[in-house]
Amino acid sequence: MSTRERFGARLAKAVASRGPLCAGIDPHPGLIEAWGLPVDASGLERFALSATEVLAARAAIVKPQSAFFESFGAAGIRVLERVVETARDAGALVLLDVKRGDIGSTMAAYTAAYVADGAAIAADAITVSPYLGFGSLEQCAATAVSAGRGIFVLARTSNPEAAAVQNAKLPDGRTVAQAIVDSAAALNAGAEPLGDVGVVVGATIAPGEARSRAAERSGAGTRFRGPGSHCGRSSGDLRAGTAGSAARVVSRHPEARSGASGFAPSGRTRRRSAGRPAGKRPIAGPGTGPHQAPPHCGRCSRVGTVASPTQI
Amino acid sequence: MSTRERFGARLAKAVASRGPLCAGIDPHPGLIEAWGLPVDASGLERFALSATEVLAARAAIVKPQSAFFESFGAAGIRVLERVVETARDAGALVLLDVKRGDIGSTMAAYTAAYVADGAAIAADAITVSPYLGFGSLEQCAATAVSAGRGIFVLARTSNPEAAAVQNAKLPDGRTVAQAIVDSAAALNAGAEPLGDVGVVVGATIAPGEARSRAAERSGAGTRFRGPGSHCGRSSGDLRAGTAGSAARVVSRHPEARSGASGFAPSGRTRRRSAGRPAGKRPIAGPGTGPHQAPPHCGRCSRVGTVASPTQI
Repeated sequence: MSTRERFGARLAKAVASRGPLCAGIDPHPGLIEAWGLPVDASGLERFALSATEVLAARAAIVKPQSAFFESFGAAGIRVLERVVETARDAGALVLLDVKRGDIGSTMAAYTAAYVADGAAIAADAITVSPYLGFGSLEQCAATAVSAGRGIFVLARTSNPEAAAVQNAKLPDGRTVAQAIVDSAAALNAGAEPLGDVGVVVGATIAPGEARSRAAERSGAGTRFRGPGSHCGRSSGDLRAGTAGSAARVVSRHPEARSGASGFAPSGRTRRRSAGRPAGKRPIAGPGTGPHQAPPHCGRCSRVGTVASPTQI
Repeated sequence: MSTRERFGARLAKAVASRGPLCAGIDPHPGLIEAWGLPVDASGLERFALSATEVLAARAAIVKPQSAFFESFGAAGIRVLERVVETARDAGALVLLDVKRGDIGSTMAAYTAAYVADGAAIAADAITVSPYLGFGSLEQCAATAVSAGRGIFVLARTSNPEAAAVQNAKLPDGRTVAQAIVDSAAALNAGAEPLGDVGVVVGATIAPGEARSRAAERSGAGTRFRGPGSHCGRSSGDLRAGTAGSAARVVSRHPEARSGASGFAPSGRTRRRSAGRPAGKRPIAGPGTGPHQAPPHCGRCSRVGTVASPTQI
């Protein structure tokens, strides 16, 4: 058992002191380019670290998306390591969005990579994918919890293609997604004020899904805040749980480029820098101009709790 | 469109010339330690590169498991880059076992990382996870195919916990896993002799699953070779497809430590090296002793095709 305080307790404190903001660090090549930076590991580093320094000073949680770092190979992962360190140094919790999911010693290796004591890229929590069954993730959850860390399990995502897996029915009549939420809630039983195992539930109503999503909601009495909605302009609500056992929910972005869009340059900045060689273009970031702080942190997410048992 | 030949065609040639062997490179910490190497990036590198040099000279496909490299952070990914290069230089195809799965620009970033033209860690194919729906993977498949590469989609894995997702039923009565297989087969329609989109189906009959698996099989007239069975000692069979459109199947290991077990030191070697400092222990590998070639390549897998449509 780590001497680190339990993740759920640390999350509750972070949200109490900084608000429920979870800021995505999604260094899409298009964003790197829009900043006048080269689309390589050096441009990734300048963009991602600048964004992290600004956002981690304010947000309770910073959520880097691993894919955008992996696409630059080992050099990109080195940048991810620095992003995680920088965010932690600035006092934010780090939710690393990796969506890993495997079994046995392979899942143990992912656990060792990200949420075990002594992890190589030590996040406070990671996202995980339950296609191989929620049970395949339980040892990861146990190891994370004992290290003072957590996991967020994909349950019901907002993309329309997801229904073909997540809304499939189990013999007991529940959907796959509902069973994931129930399993997460069971692991959190008795944890106050928050457990260490969260679920990922998006709420964008995709074309053709409105009816079914509405039905899910009406049955639940609980609504999840939708991805893509803006901080300060809530398009839904996420109600704090009242039961003793609680599952946390983090909404996610349907398009990664939206993650740090509040940190994106204005059209004027983009136009000014367009004609200059990459090395000569102004780098916006902490202390360099109007982008010191995100003025309209566009597509960040909120993190909260839902009552358990909770129907989605 | 890349000038690289289509993945399915390259796979068919590789199997025809080298046999249907897919050798796992699963550098579990326990294996690294058993070789008298330090459990760090340097030990990982010596173990994984030695195993790759030996196995890639013989196997049609080498399958590194990303988790065991990720657990050493950026330094581990640097080793993974070298493993991929080494395997390709030795004439083997590389199936990188990463089980990624996401949507939109995030999935595009994973695609850019591994299977697009100019990929940072350019595998010939990767494993992907369909929890966000098979449709979320189709752009990845299209990009991979146009680059002469492929994907293998998780469908029905052998671990007992998987049934709670993969055997869930869709409104049309099919299981989630069956729908994945059908979708892969549809993408392969018309491809000869093999398509570029495979599926992962394990065949270990777990306790309590025997009845349902047997039923699945009897309906199919097709059996999948089970993970954990030995090369040359087939515990099942994988029949070549007869239909024009074919989905490929690769069986996987339930425990990653089994991946390169044919390359593991004998008990005698382990005992001999146990008392020596790590730096002084003999490193078995190409040209260094009895482990030049895998004498009983323990838990490797076979790759083949199944007829489409195929019931699993």
